[in-house]
Amino acid sequence: MDEEKRVGAVDLEGFASASGLDAIFAPSSVAVVGASGRKGSVGRAVFKNILESDYSGVIYPVNIKARSVCGVRAYPSLADIPDPVDLAVVIVPAAMTPAVAREAAAKGVRGLIVISAGFKETGPAGAAIEEELLAVCREHGIRLVGPNCLGLINTDPEKGLNASFARRKANPGNIAFVSQSGALCTAVLDFAAKKQIGFSKFISVGNKADIGELALIRYLHDDPQTKVIMLYVEELRHGAEFIETVREITGGDRPTPILAVKSGRTAEGAAAVSSHTGSLAGTEAVYNALFEQSGVFRAQSIEELFDFAIALASQPLPASNRIAIITNAGGPGIIATDVTIHSGLQLARLQNETMEVLRSHLPAAANIKNPVDVIGDARSDRYQAALAAVLNDENVDGVIFILTPQSMTEIEETAAIIPTLARRSGKPVVASFMGLLDVSTGIEILEQNNIPHYHFPEGAARAMGALYQYASWLHRQHLKEFALSVDKAAAAAIIAEALAGGRQYLGEVEGNEILRAYGFPVMPAMLATSAAEAGQAVERLGPCAMKIVSPQIIHKSDVGGVRVGIATPEAASQAYEAIVASARAHAPEAEIRGVYMQRMAEAGVEVILGIKRYRSFGPLLMFGLGGIFVEIFKDVSFRLAPIRHNGARHMVRSIKAFPMLNGARGAAVADQEALEQCLLRLSQLATDHPAIAELDINPLMVHAEGKGCSVADCRILLKEE
Amino acid sequence: MDEEKRVGAVDLEGFASASGLDAIFAPSSVAVVGASGRKGSVGRAVFKNILESDYSGVIYPVNIKARSVCGVRAYPSLADIPDPVDLAVVIVPAAMTPAVAREAAAKGVRGLIVISAGFKETGPAGAAIEEELLAVCREHGIRLVGPNCLGLINTDPEKGLNASFARRKANPGNIAFVSQSGALCTAVLDFAAKKQIGFSKFISVGNKADIGELALIRYLHDDPQTKVIMLYVEELRHGAEFIETVREITGGDRPTPILAVKSGRTAEGAAAVSSHTGSLAGTEAVYNALFEQSGVFRAQSIEELFDFAIALASQPLPASNRIAIITNAGGPGIIATDVTIHSGLQLARLQNETMEVLRSHLPAAANIKNPVDVIGDARSDRYQAALAAVLNDENVDGVIFILTPQSMTEIEETAAIIPTLARRSGKPVVASFMGLLDVSTGIEILEQNNIPHYHFPEGAARAMGALYQYASWLHRQHLKEFALSVDKAAAAAIIAEALAGGRQYLGEVEGNEILRAYGFPVMPAMLATSAAEAGQAVERLGPCAMKIVSPQIIHKSDVGGVRVGIATPEAASQAYEAIVASARAHAPEAEIRGVYMQRMAEAGVEVILGIKRYRSFGPLLMFGLGGIFVEIFKDVSFRLAPIRHNGARHMVRSIKAFPMLNGARGAAVADQEALEQCLLRLSQLATDHPAIAELDINPLMVHAEGKGCSVADCRILLKEE
Repeated sequence: MDEEKRVGAVDLEGFASASGLDAIFAPSSVAVVGASGRKGSVGRAVFKNILESDYSGVIYPVNIKARSVCGVRAYPSLADIPDPVDLAVVIVPAAMTPAVAREAAAKGVRGLIVISAGFKETGPAGAAIEEELLAVCREHGIRLVGPNCLGLINTDPEKGLNASFARRKANPGNIAFVSQSGALCTAVLDFAAKKQIGFSKFISVGNKADIGELALIRYLHDDPQTKVIMLYVEELRHGAEFIETVREITGGDRPTPILAVKSGRTAEGAAAVSSHTGSLAGTEAVYNALFEQSGVFRAQSIEELFDFAIALASQPLPASNRIAIITNAGGPGIIATDVTIHSGLQLARLQNETMEVLRSHLPAAANIKNPVDVIGDARSDRYQAALAAVLNDENVDGVIFILTPQSMTEIEETAAIIPTLARRSGKPVVASFMGLLDVSTGIEILEQNNIPHYHFPEGAARAMGALYQYASWLHRQHLKEFALSVDKAAAAAIIAEALAGGRQYLGEVEGNEILRAYGFPVMPAMLATSAAEAGQAVERLGPCAMKIVSPQIIHKSDVGGVRVGIATPEAASQAYEAIVASARAHAPEAEIRGVYMQRMAEAGVEVILGIKRYRSFGPLLMFGLGGIFVEIFKDVSFRLAPIRHNGARHMVRSIKAFPMLNGARGAAVADQEALEQCLLRLSQLATDHPAIAELDINPLMVHAEGKGCSVADCRILLKEE
Repeated sequence: MDEEKRVGAVDLEGFASASGLDAIFAPSSVAVVGASGRKGSVGRAVFKNILESDYSGVIYPVNIKARSVCGVRAYPSLADIPDPVDLAVVIVPAAMTPAVAREAAAKGVRGLIVISAGFKETGPAGAAIEEELLAVCREHGIRLVGPNCLGLINTDPEKGLNASFARRKANPGNIAFVSQSGALCTAVLDFAAKKQIGFSKFISVGNKADIGELALIRYLHDDPQTKVIMLYVEELRHGAEFIETVREITGGDRPTPILAVKSGRTAEGAAAVSSHTGSLAGTEAVYNALFEQSGVFRAQSIEELFDFAIALASQPLPASNRIAIITNAGGPGIIATDVTIHSGLQLARLQNETMEVLRSHLPAAANIKNPVDVIGDARSDRYQAALAAVLNDENVDGVIFILTPQSMTEIEETAAIIPTLARRSGKPVVASFMGLLDVSTGIEILEQNNIPHYHFPEGAARAMGALYQYASWLHRQHLKEFALSVDKAAAAAIIAEALAGGRQYLGEVEGNEILRAYGFPVMPAMLATSAAEAGQAVERLGPCAMKIVSPQIIHKSDVGGVRVGIATPEAASQAYEAIVASARAHAPEAEIRGVYMQRMAEAGVEVILGIKRYRSFGPLLMFGLGGIFVEIFKDVSFRLAPIRHNGARHMVRSIKAFPMLNGARGAAVADQEALEQCLLRLSQLATDHPAIAELDINPLMVHAEGKGCSVADCRILLKEE
């Protein structure tokens, strides 16, 4: 456990810190340790890539045997290099890397890229080497990329270099790519080269011993070359830190959009779970919450990643979601309309004047309503008039431009009119020139002029949807926070006492105390230790639920230990005797401490609130409607704690059953503000007490607007830290 | 109305009949009416395409002025051609086409392809010309493609011809494409040429005046060249005929898989609807039902259409859904695993012997479990050993083969080993060689050898999912039909009487009679016309629901006209007086016929059954759980009537809330067989009585297994035919 915590702490340092990365991306000099002239070797591939990348600094091959590598004078060791060295790229067997790191430290090297494999990914022995390597780097303030990676590429014309063994070079551009899979890097470079997609930086992070995604995101956010960041992720850590930092980067004053593909097995270890929340949560829920809260767009495939990145990298964001479509064919226009609407956009309603202008330029058979159909025989002049007219329309926030190659179509001329009109409009324009061969020269013109292009109108419409989604994130309102006061110490004391007594499961007696300390609307309650006290309790509290209290009895209903709706003192006294007698009969050895008397909660919409804690991500909060909604429909929402008012509102409103809290079927509107406050208290509770592993409040009764909520039942699972 | 019916009837004839299509696809001679030598003209494009398509018959240009067209002797009219003519391709102004058709009839022409535009798509005048053209064709037994189309292409080396004005030719292959959009045809041909996808037939159907999709599906099903049919559809008609025919073609003894993209505005006319079913149904629901019941796979985009078609055209179907993945890189393997599972497949569990063989061929660091990772330095021999081993494994039903270009990777050699191994295994293999440039020679080898290839592993996994989905359709069980008897005449009499009386809305009094005639479990009921009769009714029937009966009172609750759970004769008599008094007070002018006394249905799961009739598709049936499930979650299933036992079961089981009928949360399992029978009775009712426009049975109470169902309420909306 200690070991894990230590590694975790170290991890965060490297994972998150962007300091010293300049030595990695823009070194004044580079040594390649393990450089080789042998054909087919990685040492040669890396060295040749740097050599051929117009690197403006000095490159030193280090090879214990060779006098020169590819014609460049070589040195037997780092120490032998007569000049200072900023960055060392290392391609030697894993076992030798700690020694190389020590030499590098002595030489004053500030950055290492360890390409070699044979570390953590191979088992405990490799993991030990990786730890040693990392320890040396940490000790001497050296930043480390890898090990077990493809290297990195910086396309900056002044300071750039290709320190990778990728077969293919990256074209310069403004998209950064960070990948946890080296093999994917190669395929992506190949794909991007064909599609004329350019990169600012391209980083294979490998095992992420030191530098992780968060450090790179910070660095790339400050990189003037980078406009969009794409991630390929298999696993992340440090959820809270990730969200805190990345939400500012994607949504702050100088925003950088980030897109991610996350893959990983869906099936999880069959760990036993003790709560509803535990059974519904899972890594997918965690990552979805993580990305959503960070403002990172989760793409569904590598292709979508590119499709959206090229739009974000080149186009302004739409002011709202009213989109115009221009096409020279009906079918593709219909397809684009469908996908436009499914992507959360709407078809702009063109102004009368726009339609007047369109009518004057287009033949009678053309459609001057949106989608605008310039019809099959349109030459570029007709397209130009139509595009200018819709871009000038104040009701239009963006344009999807479709061309099908027909006999009169002027493919290149039409492509050429788009960039200027688009640029001066300040509105996003995306295009689909359908087909691959006939239209390829037109596509080239679009790509060279930063008009994102898609082979089919579906892709164009989805990309426009992504632009709008990012705009919505940037311009979301920030709800005022509630001032909530909590008694952290009181809750901590109850938790500590339970753990000291070896108890992990807390029922509602202690659970309610903890919730009360955090300001949850818990019904007043007392412990009755006799039939007479039970009667008095009902006199004081009103109609009660009664539950047996015994450390040995967990399933109270099974022993006849629960009665609800007890309204009179007499009924309470009788119920007390009956409950105790039944419990004694079922569990003769149980120590019975009395009967818990709690005022019945008034009716309301039953919801469930929960916590499930993850080691690398902290507590995941859950919200949903109770009963069948959670059990059959799994209609719940998740967020990683801590959340703010925005997050609480989003959790409440994003379930499908939200109308049931909002006056559906003639019911009263539920007290959503009180519910949002409960979620914020839950977030605070989860954040303050790491010993809470799982928690269900099930149900919480949400009363009508202004009437608040009531906790009707809860259970907590503790885990010693 | 008569007009519509007439056109509808004619429509079906052309839409569905495949007779005479040989004259269109494989004519012995072709005349091109409107052939022209003028550059840029459609008449020239079509003529040149036929001329250059290695057509084995004779081509005659018809041009009123020219002596020759492109060097071929021309004729002023069809009549002047000295030889017989099978097919005429027509490119003259729309207004002249009926005259051309008459000439063609006189000449003995059996098929027309009218490429010209200016018909129905331009308005009423054009529609009149189209009707005249069609009438001439019908009168003389001439089959007609178009008008307003791109033409068609048959790639058959013996009988083929390219009778279209497409810029690009189609490569020969075994996929047929039928498109309602001419512009899309051009783009698709272009796309397919680049991807080396070949077509058997390629048809632009245009306005579908005569020949429609069903006729072409029938013809293509019998075409030995065609293995897969792809459709691009904007609207279809004759739903029942389509389903009846196409389900046999996709799922019969000599099955042809069919894929479709259907586009069309999602928003519908804001027609007032009077039932739950009416408000939840819609064109999307209709088309989804239509395709599902026909066994037509609905692709989500043009790209998916191709992705799945090339797999179906080249690969055998998997015996079950256990898939193995072979990769040389971890990341892409993980991506493929995710999508594999999301596509309804599962990762095969390899046999011990397979893993033993893999272990013997692969290095220690390789993963011999599924997904099999041959790791980055794998050459083709290692891939070969791995592919052979997993294909030999009886637990493996298909293989996804992934390659990323790394320094040791032998791209062409690896591609070359797949086809033979795949073929001898009899199992489907799909591949993803990632990247575009480096791997392009490998991809070419795959494409030439009929191994479907996808740029990213996601596409490969989804295509494998499509293969399995088609296999599941082919091998579905056919449930035995119930023998249900109904009294059609009794129901017809009630409907006729209501319509004769000018009543469109039937409440539960007449509704129940109709349902009883169709064997629905309707609670016994009687009409009480006095307080005393009401009391007697409860004595006879048991506890009753009581509802005012008055032709003028539709919203019975609003006038205090409903009481439920009346258990004693006294209570019934009192309730009678109260109901009548309240109704008189609220609606003094209403004619009160009495109070409807109906035995209370026992408790059960509340479900809703419904009918909504569409003009071109007939009745759409709906099923779902009642109340919030239908209103908020819209958790309902649809099928077009008539359905069979399979369809009824599918409707019941495909809603998300199905567990609530299947013993969820400790409840009794509901009587699903009785529910299936109710759905089949509903189907029969809808089919037998076209006057039923909408119907809700809401709720139907479904009791525990063996206890049947009870109709608790119903309403019917009639429309005179």
